[in-house]
Amino acid sequence: MAVKPDIEIAREAQKRPITEIGAKLGIPAEQLLPYGHDKAKVSQAFIAGLEGRKSGRLILVTAINPTPAGEGKTTTTVGLGDGLQRIGRKAAICIREASLGPNFGMKGGAAGGGYAQIVPMEEMNLHFTGDFHAITSAHNLLAAMLDNHIYWGNEHQIDVRRVVWRRVVDMNDRALRQVVTSLGGVANGFPRESGFDITVASEVMAILCLAEDLQDLQRRLGDMIVAYRHDRTPVFARDIDADGAMTVLLRDAMQPNLVQTLEHTPAFVHGGPFANIAHGCNSVIATKTALRLADYVVTEAGFGADLGAEKFFDIKCRKAGLHPDCVVLVATVRALKMNGGLERDELGDENVSAVREGCSNLGRHIQNLKSFGVPVVVAINHFTGDTEAEIDAVRAYVAGQGAEAHLCKHWAEGGAGIEGLATRVAEIADADRAQFAPLYPDQMPLWQKIECVAERIYHAHEVTADQRIHEQLAQWEAQGYGHLPVCMAKTQYSFSTDPGLRGAPEGHVVPVREVRLSAGAGFVVAICGEIMTMPGLPRRPAAEKIRLNDAGEVEGLF
Amino acid sequence: MAVKPDIEIAREAQKRPITEIGAKLGIPAEQLLPYGHDKAKVSQAFIAGLEGRKSGRLILVTAINPTPAGEGKTTTTVGLGDGLQRIGRKAAICIREASLGPNFGMKGGAAGGGYAQIVPMEEMNLHFTGDFHAITSAHNLLAAMLDNHIYWGNEHQIDVRRVVWRRVVDMNDRALRQVVTSLGGVANGFPRESGFDITVASEVMAILCLAEDLQDLQRRLGDMIVAYRHDRTPVFARDIDADGAMTVLLRDAMQPNLVQTLEHTPAFVHGGPFANIAHGCNSVIATKTALRLADYVVTEAGFGADLGAEKFFDIKCRKAGLHPDCVVLVATVRALKMNGGLERDELGDENVSAVREGCSNLGRHIQNLKSFGVPVVVAINHFTGDTEAEIDAVRAYVAGQGAEAHLCKHWAEGGAGIEGLATRVAEIADADRAQFAPLYPDQMPLWQKIECVAERIYHAHEVTADQRIHEQLAQWEAQGYGHLPVCMAKTQYSFSTDPGLRGAPEGHVVPVREVRLSAGAGFVVAICGEIMTMPGLPRRPAAEKIRLNDAGEVEGLF
Repeated sequence: MAVKPDIEIAREAQKRPITEIGAKLGIPAEQLLPYGHDKAKVSQAFIAGLEGRKSGRLILVTAINPTPAGEGKTTTTVGLGDGLQRIGRKAAICIREASLGPNFGMKGGAAGGGYAQIVPMEEMNLHFTGDFHAITSAHNLLAAMLDNHIYWGNEHQIDVRRVVWRRVVDMNDRALRQVVTSLGGVANGFPRESGFDITVASEVMAILCLAEDLQDLQRRLGDMIVAYRHDRTPVFARDIDADGAMTVLLRDAMQPNLVQTLEHTPAFVHGGPFANIAHGCNSVIATKTALRLADYVVTEAGFGADLGAEKFFDIKCRKAGLHPDCVVLVATVRALKMNGGLERDELGDENVSAVREGCSNLGRHIQNLKSFGVPVVVAINHFTGDTEAEIDAVRAYVAGQGAEAHLCKHWAEGGAGIEGLATRVAEIADADRAQFAPLYPDQMPLWQKIECVAERIYHAHEVTADQRIHEQLAQWEAQGYGHLPVCMAKTQYSFSTDPGLRGAPEGHVVPVREVRLSAGAGFVVAICGEIMTMPGLPRRPAAEKIRLNDAGEVEGLF
Repeated sequence: MAVKPDIEIAREAQKRPITEIGAKLGIPAEQLLPYGHDKAKVSQAFIAGLEGRKSGRLILVTAINPTPAGEGKTTTTVGLGDGLQRIGRKAAICIREASLGPNFGMKGGAAGGGYAQIVPMEEMNLHFTGDFHAITSAHNLLAAMLDNHIYWGNEHQIDVRRVVWRRVVDMNDRALRQVVTSLGGVANGFPRESGFDITVASEVMAILCLAEDLQDLQRRLGDMIVAYRHDRTPVFARDIDADGAMTVLLRDAMQPNLVQTLEHTPAFVHGGPFANIAHGCNSVIATKTALRLADYVVTEAGFGADLGAEKFFDIKCRKAGLHPDCVVLVATVRALKMNGGLERDELGDENVSAVREGCSNLGRHIQNLKSFGVPVVVAINHFTGDTEAEIDAVRAYVAGQGAEAHLCKHWAEGGAGIEGLATRVAEIADADRAQFAPLYPDQMPLWQKIECVAERIYHAHEVTADQRIHEQLAQWEAQGYGHLPVCMAKTQYSFSTDPGLRGAPEGHVVPVREVRLSAGAGFVVAICGEIMTMPGLPRRPAAEKIRLNDAGEVEGLF
């Protein structure tokens, strides 16, 4: 069956007025703050009034380790929401917002694909409702106030060499990675080295996504460490009185955005923290709001299950007191073949043994996910070239792992193509089988937490780090940060730290190169490998071809 | 009569749904893109359909040279709109948007004051509908693409010492005025000096405010000069293929924002270019849209009439083919006293002779404005401490100048307090007396244009400049930019370049220190004195006190 390009399907969408989508969840029109006719924020007042309501079922969609073949995690998240709606359930979807900047480098991403998409696609890849701009403003206000504090006498005795708060911009701009600021003499301050990250890497973004309400937001913003004094004690955002004004700038952004799928299933699209130096999930406030309004909430987490699901469980669910009822693990025959050793140009022909080989990756994720106490179902996201024998091989493997696999055709058929999975997921969730527990307790020492994730999830043989990293962790424990969870930053392409090592590697070594404290967000980042907090543009950036066509449509963005 | 603080009045406003405000102007609800329930953008499609409609009357509100006493130009703009509506006329108001950044330095500005305000005040001082964020993004995308071009081989042979395109942020951040970028080695590019301006100083902002439609916007963006090659030829934004993507980023921002006054008069609040290095008026698209929908459109220009009105006439009206029908020149007794030599702490007592002395400033503005061929009316914006004798002195002086003055009490009484002025302004506009012509013709050489403004508007004796400035102007003329108008950047506090010289100084010298070409916006900036394109924060920035109170209201912003 021939499916049109995502953008064409999205443009042909017969969107319903957003008030009608809100009404499906019982949100009165006056509690929706519209942004155009197809997007709205749900008012803070309405959300506050939901306190104490019974929670719906929470379903996490995650995936095997990503490959260039594509897995379709977001597509399956959207499709499953549509499928649940189709079988008569009151469903909502929760996903992250897209970052504007990277769309000008590589072509932008749809929210889903084929006939399982969230719309309006163009706006969601551009300014949307301005949340990321608000985060950029709040982040940079703090930076300006910090340098201003130093300029006007530096009452807090900040060591200008130890300012850790950088600036952000929602743009791929390598020229800003490392800069010297405050040049030009007395009027402009004290020159110092600094740099810019992309907005999604801001701790403010992580905080917005973890905060329960505006009070919690302000408290967390105040808790952020921005610099160290000459005596090495930390200076908090609260110390320079930035937390109140930042909260004001983020007031609207804290309200979740409501949009719709092609089949008019309500979708909350809110927040988008980096999946490496942050936890990579949509906002807690969106997820909790959705849970209070719908019977089934389908959400996803960044990267593969080793990173995304682990952080979803150990950071988001732990912190927000969420109890997931079911996990859907997405795999494709093509991606399993790549995990089985094939290259991208070898995916065209049937190769059952490569599929079987690659299932080792799938199997480890199944076992890992089960270890969190949540029932797992595998979604085989169908590609038109998949053969019966290949699909059967996956089904058989999954059955051997004590789980079940469902072939899903939502990409080509929308919600109708995923009714089987939707029915099973609803049954499993309703059966209340989940006995969710995070991987490690709060009181475990920080280093042991890192080891715990590396050994139990990555199946690493050893975790290594310099003495200074151990000392740093010990210092944070002494300062009262020992109870925080760890946020692992490593390659998403492998269970190991070597992106080329597909399948289910064993006995590898995970080197922790750096640790960072996100005191406001509430986690310690363990960096295992290179991480990039400011991407660059490619030689021929997508932006060169992006323009409005004569019909006023955006060309070149997708 | 005791009037409450602006913010209290604004919060008590009984706003009507924005669709109702749009309906007053005949805008169908589906052509309004709502941002919440009290703000909306007017759709591009609707605006395109207005082409060819008869234009209403255009009324400019300007003022004497600003003093610390306050003149109330925006308050009078708003009040006059309300007054016109009150006497049964179909009126609309056009003003600029506020910049977010400066509100965190000094307390934010209301749009108007007392009972002559535009609401919602908080949103208008924060993110509003995201226009400035879109401008920031478009500006910085160009900067990123430019550095990316250099990074990937510098096909255009750009001289990195002659990159003139800086970056912007909507924040008062002196640390960014002068920076070195692209540090850190091979991966990050070629180190060079640069800096950040505040967003309102971006040429993109000036272009958004002068462009007729999206096609014109893209053409002008492409025309911007971003750097010079080693052979000194200019590199345009078009050369690095940024104009299309910038236009996409600005598509929504090009649609004018509709809000309302306390008395529900429709108000377009759109664009906000700097009044020194740019022309300081709201957008052409908003003004033209308003003129096609209302019978009377009241607008204003930045600073006093010597700068604001002159640029309104010579840049905005010339370029957009607008024909103003009447000018309202705002003065207050208090400000005239300061122009008459008093200090701020001497304004409490009646002092008719100081008023008479200060009227020299008023008189020169009257004559200047008349020289553009537009009828002038003086609005005396009433302060409660003004005495009858002082007011009579102003009336008498104005009569002697061949004009009329009206006492206006809109601050305390809203539209009811300004009916007299509204009635006269409508009569004058309807009488079609205006014979508007810009001060100088397009074909006058650039240097002569500068002299023309300085001599005829500022009453300067002489204009001076280094030889290199004359050479620069000659070069631009040779390159085909000789037809552009000039945009004067000088202090707003005096007709001269000395901010302390109030009243009506004669025989002073205007030194042109620098000239800049804004090839996309379409003017040559003549800088006469210091101009600051990136403000700093004060010792105790307003941000320190800004917070949400328990009622969820913003405190400390006003």
